[in-house]
Amino acid sequence: MQFELTTDKLDSLKLAIEEKDASSIKFQLQDLYAPDIAQLINHLDLEAAAYIYELLDEEIAPNVLLELDDDKREDLLATFSTKEIAEQLDNMDSDDAADVIAELPEEIQEEVLSHIEDIDQASDIAELINYEEGTAGSLMAKELVSVYAFETVSQCIEEIRAQADSVDVMYAVYVLDSNQRLIGMLSLKKLIISHPMALIEEIYEPDIQSVKTNTTSEEVAEFMQKYDLVVLPVVDQLGRLVGRITIDDVVDVIRETADENIQRMSGLSDDVDSNDNMWRLSRARIPWLLVGMCGGIIGSRIIGTYEEHIKIHPEMAYFIPLIGAMGGNVGVQSSAIIVQGLANNTLLIDKLAPKLLKELTVGLINGIICAALIWSYAFVIEDWRLAATVSLALLTVIMCASFLGTFVPLTMNRFKINPALATGPFVTTLNDIIGITIYFLTGRLLYAFF
Amino acid sequence: MQFELTTDKLDSLKLAIEEKDASSIKFQLQDLYAPDIAQLINHLDLEAAAYIYELLDEEIAPNVLLELDDDKREDLLATFSTKEIAEQLDNMDSDDAADVIAELPEEIQEEVLSHIEDIDQASDIAELINYEEGTAGSLMAKELVSVYAFETVSQCIEEIRAQADSVDVMYAVYVLDSNQRLIGMLSLKKLIISHPMALIEEIYEPDIQSVKTNTTSEEVAEFMQKYDLVVLPVVDQLGRLVGRITIDDVVDVIRETADENIQRMSGLSDDVDSNDNMWRLSRARIPWLLVGMCGGIIGSRIIGTYEEHIKIHPEMAYFIPLIGAMGGNVGVQSSAIIVQGLANNTLLIDKLAPKLLKELTVGLINGIICAALIWSYAFVIEDWRLAATVSLALLTVIMCASFLGTFVPLTMNRFKINPALATGPFVTTLNDIIGITIYFLTGRLLYAFF
Repeated sequence: MQFELTTDKLDSLKLAIEEKDASSIKFQLQDLYAPDIAQLINHLDLEAAAYIYELLDEEIAPNVLLELDDDKREDLLATFSTKEIAEQLDNMDSDDAADVIAELPEEIQEEVLSHIEDIDQASDIAELINYEEGTAGSLMAKELVSVYAFETVSQCIEEIRAQADSVDVMYAVYVLDSNQRLIGMLSLKKLIISHPMALIEEIYEPDIQSVKTNTTSEEVAEFMQKYDLVVLPVVDQLGRLVGRITIDDVVDVIRETADENIQRMSGLSDDVDSNDNMWRLSRARIPWLLVGMCGGIIGSRIIGTYEEHIKIHPEMAYFIPLIGAMGGNVGVQSSAIIVQGLANNTLLIDKLAPKLLKELTVGLINGIICAALIWSYAFVIEDWRLAATVSLALLTVIMCASFLGTFVPLTMNRFKINPALATGPFVTTLNDIIGITIYFLTGRLLYAFF
Repeated sequence: MQFELTTDKLDSLKLAIEEKDASSIKFQLQDLYAPDIAQLINHLDLEAAAYIYELLDEEIAPNVLLELDDDKREDLLATFSTKEIAEQLDNMDSDDAADVIAELPEEIQEEVLSHIEDIDQASDIAELINYEEGTAGSLMAKELVSVYAFETVSQCIEEIRAQADSVDVMYAVYVLDSNQRLIGMLSLKKLIISHPMALIEEIYEPDIQSVKTNTTSEEVAEFMQKYDLVVLPVVDQLGRLVGRITIDDVVDVIRETADENIQRMSGLSDDVDSNDNMWRLSRARIPWLLVGMCGGIIGSRIIGTYEEHIKIHPEMAYFIPLIGAMGGNVGVQSSAIIVQGLANNTLLIDKLAPKLLKELTVGLINGIICAALIWSYAFVIEDWRLAATVSLALLTVIMCASFLGTFVPLTMNRFKINPALATGPFVTTLNDIIGITIYFLTGRLLYAFF
């Protein structure tokens, strides 16, 4: 049912491109949708991509362009004249066109705009590129149908007829007062079933949710998810309707936010995927690796102060990895739950204490279970002092890690830092250092006294 | 703009509940939407929740019920009679009603169904609960408008009028052949702008994407995301239209899948959030902690075999945490990129070798950088043999972790195991063990020969 990209399909396409066999290429692409074709082109070199793109139908080409990876689109557009770019933009929704034009070098943006034949489209795009990235303004599209409250149903239908060409999917008709302020909406269903001479103000639904142009994308995504909205109108500071955001654009925001969280949690400092080049992949990983190295060096200094102790009791070294790993695991578990609660807005974030207490209790339960198990093991295999040291240290480390795994992301969130950062190498490194300190302190005390 | 849950709001609501002050409660809830009210109720005990629920308007109550946490809804419904439950279900969309009824104890499901007044609704629900959870059938709703290709536009509008009550949001009209098979669709826009006597078969859009009832939820979510669909029709094995899925339900699937991935990556074996009780939170964490413990114990055995070596060279112990941590970090970074590529379908998964080669090269670059840094540090602070041991081991560990972080999730995916599992404690534990082995092997060799 769904198109699946395979090396076979890609190879047969590459072969057809090499042989410049246009009819074979068209045959291979004929049943595919724009996202499928984009997926294929993403895996081709620029020359082949440009060749295929030229062979595409006019209708599907702009959609393929939109679905391409950002880098590939940028490269491809660089081979186009400003006039050719304008032709593609003419057939896109205003929000998509604005996204594409915003990626172009600034010096040619104006030239491209001047080549767009549809003046309305050009002015819509010109307006949209002014909104800051990551705001409702940058997500919204201008294509919508609005009527004044004093108009009639038949006037409204006339309006829809007139705009039918520029609106691809229709959700609802927005209702404005005489100052262009959004005051409500009218579902298409209501429109169809109402009398043609009925006044809009008699039948419209006044209860409508909207966002401002400067609302952040994440807030928009949260808002639409929470209230199960398919489309959301955007108003300016005066409450005048300026655009609308549809859920499909928000789905992308949701996915990107989730992806970003996973990357931050995994110690990737940049938005990368496995198709990126090696230098980019390498650069995205180095920062947190260096943090981990610093943590490791600090750890080595701490252990270094116990050199004499290790000489006499080398068995103390055996459980260093266990203590470090368990601190890391518990810290990541705790912070993942907090990060997720923050992302899904299910936390009461204004009271910290009950959360920490609960987390510490969970830590205590798991700590006692783990400590008891490791005590039994070490008591049988090694000796009682080592068993006591490892189990005591493990319990303390698990409690500490539970505390930090809860406290750090909540605190970062309070200071508007992405808490997902805390779930990654940061908490792991911190817990590593704390774990080792606790372990050796406990060991020295126990061995000294007994 | 958006409702934010605070302790103050919750406390003032609790006070009003204690005082049985219905008018104050109504005042506090009056401007809230169903998800907001549900968020408040989620934080109340059962008695308070039931009290508030009774005070809600008939219109909003079923929506609040749907938005509650699963546990809270279950508890609340247990206080209702089967007739009361049926009343709530009568005002829900068929898919939501089926979800709620599926959560009820089996012995009362039939009784509840028999109390539903709207016979069509009851039979729709009865049909929907038969579909397996996690399939398109379980996601879809029955509310849709369909017409036969041989009908006219005005007949179609009549049909919409007749069904207007049961359909809340309307997307498109589905077009069927005389055997009920889905052959296309008609946008509402097209319907509004076409001549009333036009035949549907002359104006409908034959190009339509659909899924089968047994398509998995994840595939549906991927499909709708990829092709930017707002609504997707569902057909049975014979191609007959049986329902439709809307994007807002899929947004939930997307979020749940992302949440699950984050949980698997963080070593949580169950779907938990911070509002769950302590035993559940504790149980979700224990399995991977025990795996980590086993890893730690294996690590201790490995180090144990080098007891004599550590007695003479206690400085070997210093860098155990660094080696373990770096292996873990690199493994998580590598596997996160693969897991994400798999989730977003951007990987060509049929060829493993190029991916591994690329990952190894990235590992080599980062490994050389890290090894050089740690060499300089250890050379200055400790001695050249330790510096050589640590840097050589670190390079090898980073390469190994890069390889495993790529190989393990890809292999798990091939065997239909969620690859996100691999990004968590599993890869970390494995890398810990391998890292220590490499480190001590290198150390013994170097110290033995020089």
